[in-house]
Amino acid sequence: MHKITLIGTGNIAWHMARGITACADFELAELVGRTKEPPPEFNEIPSYTTQLERLRATNIIILAVADGAIASVAKLLKNTEALVLHTSGSMPMSLLDQLPSYGVLYPLQTFTKGRPVDLKKVPLCIEANNADNLKKLSSLALALSQDVQQMDSKKRADVHFSAVLANNFSNHLLALTAEYCETHDIPFELLKSLLRETLNKAFDIGPLQAQTGPARRGDFNTIKKQLAAIDDDQLQQTYTLLTNSILKTYGKEKL
Amino acid sequence: MHKITLIGTGNIAWHMARGITACADFELAELVGRTKEPPPEFNEIPSYTTQLERLRATNIIILAVADGAIASVAKLLKNTEALVLHTSGSMPMSLLDQLPSYGVLYPLQTFTKGRPVDLKKVPLCIEANNADNLKKLSSLALALSQDVQQMDSKKRADVHFSAVLANNFSNHLLALTAEYCETHDIPFELLKSLLRETLNKAFDIGPLQAQTGPARRGDFNTIKKQLAAIDDDQLQQTYTLLTNSILKTYGKEKL
Repeated sequence: MHKITLIGTGNIAWHMARGITACADFELAELVGRTKEPPPEFNEIPSYTTQLERLRATNIIILAVADGAIASVAKLLKNTEALVLHTSGSMPMSLLDQLPSYGVLYPLQTFTKGRPVDLKKVPLCIEANNADNLKKLSSLALALSQDVQQMDSKKRADVHFSAVLANNFSNHLLALTAEYCETHDIPFELLKSLLRETLNKAFDIGPLQAQTGPARRGDFNTIKKQLAAIDDDQLQQTYTLLTNSILKTYGKEKL
Repeated sequence: MHKITLIGTGNIAWHMARGITACADFELAELVGRTKEPPPEFNEIPSYTTQLERLRATNIIILAVADGAIASVAKLLKNTEALVLHTSGSMPMSLLDQLPSYGVLYPLQTFTKGRPVDLKKVPLCIEANNADNLKKLSSLALALSQDVQQMDSKKRADVHFSAVLANNFSNHLLALTAEYCETHDIPFELLKSLLRETLNKAFDIGPLQAQTGPARRGDFNTIKKQLAAIDDDQLQQTYTLLTNSILKTYGKEKL
């Protein structure tokens, strides 16, 4: 049984803890947090500590902390012989290079604490500092998920950027839409069938081919009418920029 | 059996034809297009014509034409006694007000010809010029879909705008992402699990609550690193605008 120590109590830590607990050959031995007591969402943790310098014996340490805290936490672990992994999409593996054994385990997913996700289907992007550690890391990753992708730090940063574009930004558009719906007395739920089809189409025929709407058609009448009806500056800028981007993509004139 | 004439051979016409053909009490009696022969995607059409002025006897005429063509086609129909419906989200019903019987049947969905959609689950937004016609239109709409929403032209334009924001714009972000993936040798498919969860979260807990990522966290280090790595002007502008919009939404400082 490989013992795992998990550092962090945020969104990723919560999902990692659930995933590890479900694995036969790995055991979540200790959780490390900053609050005196473990947060209530973390049940059934055998051991909890705030003392990074005095961890129990462990085989693997997973850093599920903020990107900006990885280097300083790693400094406090300098005497460990465990394999230390960070979970960041955008930070290079070299942040951990003062340690003997290190690597990266980046789950490509949007995590919210308390909202379970089937980790088995989440792509895990892995990287390690040598072949032995890559082997150890691979067996952990394959126990957690069916989809394990080996890649270097540069490629992982590219993947993380594409996730920001695709997930963070389109989710924000949904948030702007939900706000618009609320102020215009439209149930946001009305858009559910449309948006399911948007996503299915994007993966079935590709999003370039799937595009519809006034900008794709070059329907300047509708575009101008919609622009004139927007009374929020931020929304007007967003509408103009994305409309021009679509117009450009399909070889139409700009607004 | 109510006879329906369908004018147009584009994306909406193709899906309407499929939907009507599946209805027990309605019959697709004639299709009207501009090409000498009906397009090959329209099979089993009993009658096809290019002669708008000489339509067969019919009960309902559905205009599935470009927004800009609705008024001019309606002029050619001035002697009809049929109920004439346009299918536009953004055009007012009053475009048809020189006719005795008219209304709107707007399907809230993104349609691509040749890609079947379960019309039963697509919200149909309806409006008619009097109570009798609304009754006729309702029975057609309820035969086509389980989700029928009665609303006036102003509300329908608001719904159409929210669909542009949510579907057209987020699909375009997926197109920009797919392009980025291609140039960086990342399979776009890798993002599938992430984007399914993005959509599920948005409807389960609301997109405002579901937001994750560097801008939501106010992680300026990652934001600046990503911005510096973008070498395309349009993408850089899009990244900056949407990041600032997220920062503002969550009460962080602007870039």
